[in-house]
Amino acid sequence: MSAPTTEPPATNPTPVRPTAEELDHQRTAIAALGHELRALVDATVRTATPTETLHRVTEGVRRLTGQLTGRRRSRAEIPAVDEFPGGVRMYSPVTGAGSPLAPPMQVTPDSGGVVGHCTLGIAHEGPPGFVHGGVSAMLLDELMGWACYAAGTPAMTVSLQMRYHRPVPVEIPLRVYARVTGTEDRKIFVDGSISIEDDPSVSVVTAEGVFVAPDPDRARALFPSVSS
Amino acid sequence: MSAPTTEPPATNPTPVRPTAEELDHQRTAIAALGHELRALVDATVRTATPTETLHRVTEGVRRLTGQLTGRRRSRAEIPAVDEFPGGVRMYSPVTGAGSPLAPPMQVTPDSGGVVGHCTLGIAHEGPPGFVHGGVSAMLLDELMGWACYAAGTPAMTVSLQMRYHRPVPVEIPLRVYARVTGTEDRKIFVDGSISIEDDPSVSVVTAEGVFVAPDPDRARALFPSVSS
Repeated sequence: MSAPTTEPPATNPTPVRPTAEELDHQRTAIAALGHELRALVDATVRTATPTETLHRVTEGVRRLTGQLTGRRRSRAEIPAVDEFPGGVRMYSPVTGAGSPLAPPMQVTPDSGGVVGHCTLGIAHEGPPGFVHGGVSAMLLDELMGWACYAAGTPAMTVSLQMRYHRPVPVEIPLRVYARVTGTEDRKIFVDGSISIEDDPSVSVVTAEGVFVAPDPDRARALFPSVSS
Repeated sequence: MSAPTTEPPATNPTPVRPTAEELDHQRTAIAALGHELRALVDATVRTATPTETLHRVTEGVRRLTGQLTGRRRSRAEIPAVDEFPGGVRMYSPVTGAGSPLAPPMQVTPDSGGVVGHCTLGIAHEGPPGFVHGGVSAMLLDELMGWACYAAGTPAMTVSLQMRYHRPVPVEIPLRVYARVTGTEDRKIFVDGSISIEDDPSVSVVTAEGVFVAPDPDRARALFPSVSS
């Protein structure tokens, strides 16, 4: 789900904007931590190490969490390093370079739509060796939202019809594709598919989505912290 | 997606089974590490700490990953601490107590179906303050698979129709429900819904799924490592 453009609420204080250079340093540091956390997640879900080691690592993790002191953003607060809507989202569970959960999927414009590239890991596994069906839905829901934004309208998912033609393997580069196929008032119709990077002509998962651009009042009610 | 029962392949070595007590210790240690990693993930996606701290934590994470040495399970290998299909899956991205990605959702039988309880965090965010649409699909796909298993047939998702009636808030206890509504040959029809724990009569997301029990040959081809 992506989300709509709104006017800044008059009562919101203007956030302190970092300079371009500061922003770059911050994003680089966030992405580096995200990268190492993804490696730790992968090692954790694969390890067959003795319990004593697990206990020691558990203590180490607790200590690291304790180092992340200071201000924490609240629910619905948009990080200062993000561009919202439709831009960089550092902690997105699908595309975020700073997210320990994300593959992360790289999104680029493509002829008539948007393309995502990623490789999923054992942490994203459903049946042994294959991607969880819900993770495929995450990739598609996200990219289909990007397709709406690329076509000019940030929008939220109303319905998503997923079709699983073959299991999606983990640890294999994937290609995700999405494009807007039509509009009707505020409704946007979007198609999406997942294929194996080496065999892009075969769709292993396909999706049809209906997205809707919320009207401005609804958008303001849902996202009071949007100030861009 | 859950997966089918198969006969053990004749060429597979019998895995060394831990005792019940060993298994309990292992699962407790894995769950404790999962718990602390989820806390670290939450702190990471919320922090507004200076980049120097992020760099220090990044180094700390890298050192911890280095401590998880020794044997790592390979793609499609089922962990010795798991029961597959239909039982404990310690690293499931939805229900796994050992997964840094999972809420984790607690699944219990309910009249005529299965119920899941969980609270999602900012790491699972799509639009600011609300759960990513794909995460809702993960919860439902997973629980609908459990409903098939509870009804006697492990099965995989063929199609999943998601309907998003209202945005799902993060940091609010959720109730997920799924039940089998019918069967037709190897097809299983399943309904699912997500509601707010405090207002269970209102479904914020609903889903209809078609699942299929793979025939034994297909199951053996997909899951050669299944040995239970």
